[in-house]
Amino acid sequence: MTPDEFRRHGHDLIDWIADQLATSHAGEHRARPDIAPGDIRAQLPEHPPAVPEPWADVMRDLNEIIVPGLTQWQHPGFFAWFPSNITYPSILGELAAAGLGVNAMAWTTSPAATELETLMLDWMHELLDLPAHFRSTSERGGGSIQGTASEATLVAMLAARWRSTGGAINTDGDTTNLVGYSTAEAHSSIEKGFRIAGFGTHRMRHVPVDANFAMRPDALRELVKADLAAGLTPCIVVTAHGTTSSMAFDPTVEVADVCAEHGIWLHVDGAMSGIAALEPELRWVNDGLDRADSYTTNPHKWMGINFDCNLFWVADREALINALSVLPPYLAFEAAQAGAAIDYRDWTIPLGRRFRALKLWFMLRADGVEPTKAMMREQIAWTQELASMVEADDRFEIIAPHPLNLLCIALRGDSINDANTATAAMIDRANADGAALYTRTVLDGRTVMRISIGATSTTRDHVVAAWRQLQSVAGG
Amino acid sequence: MTPDEFRRHGHDLIDWIADQLATSHAGEHRARPDIAPGDIRAQLPEHPPAVPEPWADVMRDLNEIIVPGLTQWQHPGFFAWFPSNITYPSILGELAAAGLGVNAMAWTTSPAATELETLMLDWMHELLDLPAHFRSTSERGGGSIQGTASEATLVAMLAARWRSTGGAINTDGDTTNLVGYSTAEAHSSIEKGFRIAGFGTHRMRHVPVDANFAMRPDALRELVKADLAAGLTPCIVVTAHGTTSSMAFDPTVEVADVCAEHGIWLHVDGAMSGIAALEPELRWVNDGLDRADSYTTNPHKWMGINFDCNLFWVADREALINALSVLPPYLAFEAAQAGAAIDYRDWTIPLGRRFRALKLWFMLRADGVEPTKAMMREQIAWTQELASMVEADDRFEIIAPHPLNLLCIALRGDSINDANTATAAMIDRANADGAALYTRTVLDGRTVMRISIGATSTTRDHVVAAWRQLQSVAGG
Repeated sequence: MTPDEFRRHGHDLIDWIADQLATSHAGEHRARPDIAPGDIRAQLPEHPPAVPEPWADVMRDLNEIIVPGLTQWQHPGFFAWFPSNITYPSILGELAAAGLGVNAMAWTTSPAATELETLMLDWMHELLDLPAHFRSTSERGGGSIQGTASEATLVAMLAARWRSTGGAINTDGDTTNLVGYSTAEAHSSIEKGFRIAGFGTHRMRHVPVDANFAMRPDALRELVKADLAAGLTPCIVVTAHGTTSSMAFDPTVEVADVCAEHGIWLHVDGAMSGIAALEPELRWVNDGLDRADSYTTNPHKWMGINFDCNLFWVADREALINALSVLPPYLAFEAAQAGAAIDYRDWTIPLGRRFRALKLWFMLRADGVEPTKAMMREQIAWTQELASMVEADDRFEIIAPHPLNLLCIALRGDSINDANTATAAMIDRANADGAALYTRTVLDGRTVMRISIGATSTTRDHVVAAWRQLQSVAGG
Repeated sequence: MTPDEFRRHGHDLIDWIADQLATSHAGEHRARPDIAPGDIRAQLPEHPPAVPEPWADVMRDLNEIIVPGLTQWQHPGFFAWFPSNITYPSILGELAAAGLGVNAMAWTTSPAATELETLMLDWMHELLDLPAHFRSTSERGGGSIQGTASEATLVAMLAARWRSTGGAINTDGDTTNLVGYSTAEAHSSIEKGFRIAGFGTHRMRHVPVDANFAMRPDALRELVKADLAAGLTPCIVVTAHGTTSSMAFDPTVEVADVCAEHGIWLHVDGAMSGIAALEPELRWVNDGLDRADSYTTNPHKWMGINFDCNLFWVADREALINALSVLPPYLAFEAAQAGAAIDYRDWTIPLGRRFRALKLWFMLRADGVEPTKAMMREQIAWTQELASMVEADDRFEIIAPHPLNLLCIALRGDSINDANTATAAMIDRANADGAALYTRTVLDGRTVMRISIGATSTTRDHVVAAWRQLQSVAGG
């Protein structure tokens, strides 16, 4: 492709994206395609082309094969999993980063990429009103952009592991004395992280939860005591500020007491819900953060920075850097070794790093966060309104608290089994016509429909229409 | 930003990228900016704007503050680290992925993204002429896109760890019997991966190298024997096909014998050089792969898929999936559980995944690999030509074999110390005027200048000019 072709096809692709998003926002695609595994590949050639193909052919296949085969995360009826919102400036930020083609692994490999990343973490720190000990200008803390909360949680565990063992982990690799704690409601990435970091299910405690699916601090305290009595080392507690299944909030304020008593690393996972703190009235989502060792939230969910863009803050950056830094001569750079610059490769699993700060910078300057705040306030209000409608229909029940934008509902039944069967069938019927997409989870043995109201394109009308549809497919 | 503004600013940004790349390719920027830590941040406001700013202001700061503060990886005098090439179709692929805003974590979350990823791995498998046991259509193997080789290496270690312990690692998290092997010349991500996976330097063996900085299979065999005699479990050997410092090739053919004898996982790291196999005459870079358990190479280096795009193949996908899969109810999807589809979240550290297959697909269709092959052939030829010029100047010596596009040179001296001091000073002088950028490494105690000839924009004239400059700053 020549530079002139790039300009022409690039302009067309920009327009294509604008058209595409208009189509998605209007709900013109099915929310999830009605296809079977293998259907897409069957339409594509098994072998790479022997000679370059016309660009028009690529765009044709994109339109006719790929897009119809995608689950539409930007659809107004997308009530599944969690939002994966995108905004125009952040798309342009990703484009600019791709066009610059620099590697932000260290200060010297791209100084401006590193310094803009630090500044963006501090801007977000201010916008979220985070505790002072996480700010990059604080004595010992700081933040970085990670790909996903999975990675942020893992590096928190690695830093905790380093601190718990006084650094011995780097030489002996022995994790067999370390214990990690979370609830069974915490995100799957917690268990995945524990497994990678060498905890294993035998030393991974699922702290019992209360009726609201939140961690019981008293139960945590008992587990920690038992582990200490058994000669083990409680290493890290991960509290969820918004669990995946039901958006439950673990009581970090009380959990922090237990952690402080025993020198346990406290990591707070606010992947989905933490971003709500952009809105002052919702800052309760961060209660207890002032005593946390590390914290993560995802601008790539509700906030509309296109995936991937995770933010991770740590109170003691030395623990993190000591856990992750490996310095061969080709990577030993003066500025960072003298403490004058940050080499972010020592904050993340990957060495190479994209210039992801650009998309945050573009959005925070061009749009700011007021549109996100307005959207969040509306979606939370619609969730409460939907809850009232659900409560008024006695075929349904609400299974968990719903302080934000997630509602977990189920159908009633003569037995739990009957209710579960009916709810599962309702989810299948609700997803069948492609106007909306819901996902299921299990809470306390109950099959539950999750209704996540978070897509940028969703309006109150879509929520009302969704509820009418659910009423019609509920049966009973 | 409104859709109309997005179209307008997007068109401008596409043109800006084309202009920017023309500027970079013409070498109009310094290869590395002459700035100190903090210089960029000092030019930017400490606080986020209270109200949205005009787009023109964002672009002005991008041009006046950010770009001048970047190390120019697309500069024709970029002889540092490794190439981070980009091509126009792959930039458009990244843009399209950002504009679609889907999450490729599982088949059901975006079927077309998953199936295109599998197909792209098979296309690349064919173009690189990889062994049959890695193909997705094989009985037990397959490939995935990872962010970086660091991540690919780590997941290989996690799969190896799972296999070595018969899966016990998932419950007991006990790595204390496991040993990993590589040379000290292997990439830093190997040690980082070992550390994360719980090996620790006490159970991380640096296999001695030969005069060419390649692993000695006889030495590996002795280390394995000693570890077995000590009751330890040799778990994984990582061979480098192109080490970072000198592009040395470990003899995987012989290493595979040792691994086969003792059931040790063999991972081959071809991050930089493996992509050379696109050219049939260079397929020797993959010698021994037919007996490897896993393999990784980076289209985001020499091949010009913009960062990040790493390819990772595994012979036994069950070991990988068993090592990484965690299945809460909200992530348990029928298609994959029935074996009909792939959920790639079980192949990678992160759960969430970008639609990275698009940029490979765009490039392989619009440009194909012939331009990359032609570029590689030329750059390898220039490297050999440069080597001849270096050999003809008796102030210099060549420190390592240079079969591909990396030349490691040093100045001679009365002592090693003198030579090292002179070489370090030469590197500083060569980098001073910004016309080129070189990095240093250490080989066998010698300070060495690495000359990596890999940027798309580099021509023979740039190489000749670089050599003239080196001769003039060499002194002596």
